[in-house]
Amino acid sequence: MNKTTETSFCSRPAALFACGRQSIRLPVPVYIRSSASVVGSREKQGPLGELFDFAGEDDLFGCDTWEDAESSLQRDALHLALQKAGLHSTDIRYLFAGDLLGQSIATSFGLMQYERPLFGLYGACSTCGLSLTLASLAVSGSFADFAACVTSSHFASAEKEFRFPLGYGNQRPLSASWTVTGSGAFILANAPSGHDRAMITGLTPGKIIDYGLRDSMNMGACMAPAAADTIRQHFEDFGTSPDDYDKIVTGDLGKVGQRVLLDLLQTSGIDLGERHMDCGIEIYDCKKQDTHAGGSGCGCSASVLSAFLLKQLSEKKWKRILFVPTGALLSKTSYNEGQSVPGIAHALLLEAI
Amino acid sequence: MNKTTETSFCSRPAALFACGRQSIRLPVPVYIRSSASVVGSREKQGPLGELFDFAGEDDLFGCDTWEDAESSLQRDALHLALQKAGLHSTDIRYLFAGDLLGQSIATSFGLMQYERPLFGLYGACSTCGLSLTLASLAVSGSFADFAACVTSSHFASAEKEFRFPLGYGNQRPLSASWTVTGSGAFILANAPSGHDRAMITGLTPGKIIDYGLRDSMNMGACMAPAAADTIRQHFEDFGTSPDDYDKIVTGDLGKVGQRVLLDLLQTSGIDLGERHMDCGIEIYDCKKQDTHAGGSGCGCSASVLSAFLLKQLSEKKWKRILFVPTGALLSKTSYNEGQSVPGIAHALLLEAI
Repeated sequence: MNKTTETSFCSRPAALFACGRQSIRLPVPVYIRSSASVVGSREKQGPLGELFDFAGEDDLFGCDTWEDAESSLQRDALHLALQKAGLHSTDIRYLFAGDLLGQSIATSFGLMQYERPLFGLYGACSTCGLSLTLASLAVSGSFADFAACVTSSHFASAEKEFRFPLGYGNQRPLSASWTVTGSGAFILANAPSGHDRAMITGLTPGKIIDYGLRDSMNMGACMAPAAADTIRQHFEDFGTSPDDYDKIVTGDLGKVGQRVLLDLLQTSGIDLGERHMDCGIEIYDCKKQDTHAGGSGCGCSASVLSAFLLKQLSEKKWKRILFVPTGALLSKTSYNEGQSVPGIAHALLLEAI
Repeated sequence: MNKTTETSFCSRPAALFACGRQSIRLPVPVYIRSSASVVGSREKQGPLGELFDFAGEDDLFGCDTWEDAESSLQRDALHLALQKAGLHSTDIRYLFAGDLLGQSIATSFGLMQYERPLFGLYGACSTCGLSLTLASLAVSGSFADFAACVTSSHFASAEKEFRFPLGYGNQRPLSASWTVTGSGAFILANAPSGHDRAMITGLTPGKIIDYGLRDSMNMGACMAPAAADTIRQHFEDFGTSPDDYDKIVTGDLGKVGQRVLLDLLQTSGIDLGERHMDCGIEIYDCKKQDTHAGGSGCGCSASVLSAFLLKQLSEKKWKRILFVPTGALLSKTSYNEGQSVPGIAHALLLEAI
């Protein structure tokens, strides 16, 4: 991003931190003080395996049900993130959290023992972006000194929630993605500490975009139009282009969704090319690990952000990335009633400090 | 609230708008520019029937499924609220919305045609409070000029989601509440217009509170401890007592929950007495309408706030109320796995202009 685009960032009155049609340029940066990731065994075996903070051995994490296991992922991820930040849970003013399950039960049962005020969120697999966006408003707006964001997904609880319980031995087409068993937690702060991992400086919350697709086994294609819309809008609002970013990282489009995204943006004259990266593609070696199109779920972008993307930023290998978690707004009820699967994507501008 | 408590509102540094342990005193008030309520036939027949903006005749609202009907409630409520405010949907910078269904599908399919950036929320029946809280942060923090909050519930879609489809003819104990078929929409603005309905000046977001109750047919008792915790914390953070408010209005505790709330607060030396009101008790004539403990659902507090509470504030019959939507964090999965039903409640300080 050069000086010229820097100064022409916002077209609305400066008093309103609104930027362009849909974005926000934060009046003060939000510092990511610490983060943590907890994942399952398959994620541990993937290309990023060594980077995650903790991995379970049997994906039940010592619990009796998949849902309890997912709750334990959130509990452990937040515990680790607090520990790394040297903070106690009472230092966290507000929690922003969610998951993929009906009524977000992984969050309810995972985080209640922290006894902090909770904002419960649902944005399907985009919830990591949703939680970081809303927490950034709270922190940058001086409503909180510290906020924590936690999201998770679990392969087995998600299959039961959206498709079939694993015991049914359901067949999966190659366009299907593999829901990541994992959770990422992030501690956001309103002041720098000298050892923050990165900072959040801009936001482009997304709209629901529905191209009418109805295939719950091809989430990538359902979400790609929303990712394209948010990314395009982000460039317009901030007056930037792909060259201004080291990477543009979507949440969990997988290989099918990536192809759709790149094609859609090409028709708008935007070429992401090598700058595009997708957390779902990075987290597994799809051929060796039989995970088909790639990883997905709220835990996918969250664990990859914590383990890999923030590492690159904190080590200054990258200066600026656009992080775009993507969500498919599907439920088994709407799916069985013949509804389409609309998508949504929220973008965050992350910068090295 | 007298002058003394007014000036000793916040104990944290003024630079942070945090107030006490858990609350926020908004740096600039948020104006409720307009609101609208759409309800079903049973709500129309209740004591507040004449006050709602629109009521359907058969609760399907011309749709094929209960879920589509609930989506139409949200769509219509927002349409009416925009019309009353004299605004177009493109004037609304961000939507904050949710419902009770798995993956919040009433919101996804109800609001996508407005093509506005959406923050999807889940706080069970407290979602009206959650949406108004987060939208207030966005508006008061100068991140948006206009935001809209929309929540809904539908008796038939909720029974299917949480208990049994209506066709099963399930028996209901007297402690059961009746999920309100209804939606409320609110347009929040960052500047006064001279014809706003009320203003939001303070927030006390709530924690999850779990007393271990497991009865999905007694939501009032499950939520009352959370309401008590949030109300007690609000008084402590703002240095106020029940006498400082014309009413303290909970969302949907019903008659059983009201009794529990008043008893719990009594043990902390807080006597709400006649100042307590519950939207779930107000919306139906429970004896005549066979609605047992009272109304419940995200649509309950939202429609009663729009139709009745804001009317009282705008007509200056009340000067200041504490509005406390209450939620039971239940899903059929967690319930069938033997989990408890934790509660959450978010409080908003609403004042006449």
